[in-house]
Amino acid sequence: MVSLNDVAKTAHVSKMTVSRVLTHPELVSLEIQKDVQQAILELGYVQNRAGRALANKRHYNIAFVLLDDIAEIEPYYAHLLIHLTDALRHHGYTLEVRHDREFDLTNVDAFLVSGARRTDVEALHLPVPVVIYGMEPGLISVDSDNAVGTAMATEYLINHGFEHILYLGLAINEPFALNRETGYRQTMLRYGLPIEAYELPNNEAAATELIGLIAPNPGTGIVTATDRLALGALRASQALGLTFPNEIGIIGFDGIYIHKLSSPTLTTVQQPLGVIANTMVKLLMAQLNGETVSSKLITPTLVIGNSTP
Amino acid sequence: MVSLNDVAKTAHVSKMTVSRVLTHPELVSLEIQKDVQQAILELGYVQNRAGRALANKRHYNIAFVLLDDIAEIEPYYAHLLIHLTDALRHHGYTLEVRHDREFDLTNVDAFLVSGARRTDVEALHLPVPVVIYGMEPGLISVDSDNAVGTAMATEYLINHGFEHILYLGLAINEPFALNRETGYRQTMLRYGLPIEAYELPNNEAAATELIGLIAPNPGTGIVTATDRLALGALRASQALGLTFPNEIGIIGFDGIYIHKLSSPTLTTVQQPLGVIANTMVKLLMAQLNGETVSSKLITPTLVIGNSTP
Repeated sequence: MVSLNDVAKTAHVSKMTVSRVLTHPELVSLEIQKDVQQAILELGYVQNRAGRALANKRHYNIAFVLLDDIAEIEPYYAHLLIHLTDALRHHGYTLEVRHDREFDLTNVDAFLVSGARRTDVEALHLPVPVVIYGMEPGLISVDSDNAVGTAMATEYLINHGFEHILYLGLAINEPFALNRETGYRQTMLRYGLPIEAYELPNNEAAATELIGLIAPNPGTGIVTATDRLALGALRASQALGLTFPNEIGIIGFDGIYIHKLSSPTLTTVQQPLGVIANTMVKLLMAQLNGETVSSKLITPTLVIGNSTP
Repeated sequence: MVSLNDVAKTAHVSKMTVSRVLTHPELVSLEIQKDVQQAILELGYVQNRAGRALANKRHYNIAFVLLDDIAEIEPYYAHLLIHLTDALRHHGYTLEVRHDREFDLTNVDAFLVSGARRTDVEALHLPVPVVIYGMEPGLISVDSDNAVGTAMATEYLINHGFEHILYLGLAINEPFALNRETGYRQTMLRYGLPIEAYELPNNEAAATELIGLIAPNPGTGIVTATDRLALGALRASQALGLTFPNEIGIIGFDGIYIHKLSSPTLTTVQQPLGVIANTMVKLLMAQLNGETVSSKLITPTLVIGNSTP
């Protein structure tokens, strides 16, 4: 393993100088910086991060905190995590995963958080930068533009001839759920169509039961808050003998796995996880550089499947 | 923040003594150990891990390396990751996520790896402990007992009256895929029943197409290598007008979330991710303590759904 001493010898400078080039290059002449950097490249020297951390008080490590219970962990977290790992790597940071509410500051420079609810906001006011995946007032947040997503879905159904359009939403008092319902409501109002919105727990069975009870007529469209709900609605529709894509049109939300597993495949509002992850990291790095940042909403994409025209 | 100096003052000892209690307690009297530990508890002192790392050469950090491409990432990796995070935390270790093939030793004491294939085995012979989720000769491996899993599935169908039983497997030259097929083959041989095994890519459409072509008669059972394949087979069976659970019986493999999304729900061989994760961590900690360990196969569980009697 190449040591700092090896670099110093190769560059014909003292160890102190090498260290200074790494931590305070502004104190060293350009020529010496170049010599040292050249030696580092040639020798393949990797700084002992523990040593560097003590010198800079920067750990180059970010904690990604999953606040969800294991039963609520959405399968797409694996994708989000990979995107975050890749994005942080480009900035020279490692990603540590945490599954607790302690927000222990040991060895981390900042936090990325998923699954935060209103009740977590206060604990997340920390002396280091925090960016959440989601939307909570008071925290730097990155999320899909939920209202735009369901608005797109609703408008798509209207444009394809559906006038009786239901909304299956989530019985959760959180901004993402409220915004998804808002997108539907405002679009229906804009087109002068009657609103029929329901709130359910996020599982297929609840949606199947509801649609079974409602027994919608041909020509009905359904906008849902999640692909899980859409899947449940799809099952009930099939059981009622309604055919896709013209007698009934269903649009989900998420677009990570479930939409491709159903038969017919679901038209859905796809959350752009890669863009979300990159934006979270960008905002975090900016904060670590001392910049002021603000929350970002990313426009999702409507992915057409076979559950609509 | 509480410093080592504060602990020393509270315990009426030198800083050197406090440090020794933390790293070489065997060199310090029991009475002084107790005084120092009491002071640590009272003050809530947390060791600066970077400092401790340089002293012990142990980083108390494990890297979990996902070798899969993002398109192949199984959604249940999120569950595995959470289980690993929780298990490592009990041992006082943090979990770093990596998505590259460099196996950089910087700041990690050991590796947990997922998605390793035969071609990765050589690169995984590292100077630190490695445990993989999977089964590769030459590496300490933890996996579901794949052969036992499909054997249980096959025997279940036989015991419920199915004699014509097909196997839908994976066209992958890896131990897990070969072992799942072996479990079916050996059980059929044991019962004197004819083997009919197919190998497909791991997606629902391939299974749907195959079963559509085969057009099995009522009384046929299907054992599959994954829930994805089972889902595809289930769709084709429904399209052929076969009814569950008696005209056709289908059993999948994985049991993380797909089995619950299908209609009817799938009977499946469930991988015990929690036990797998805990076992991986246990073997890793043992190796870090200098013990010799061996690979472990964990018996999966047959979870009965509505796709079989």
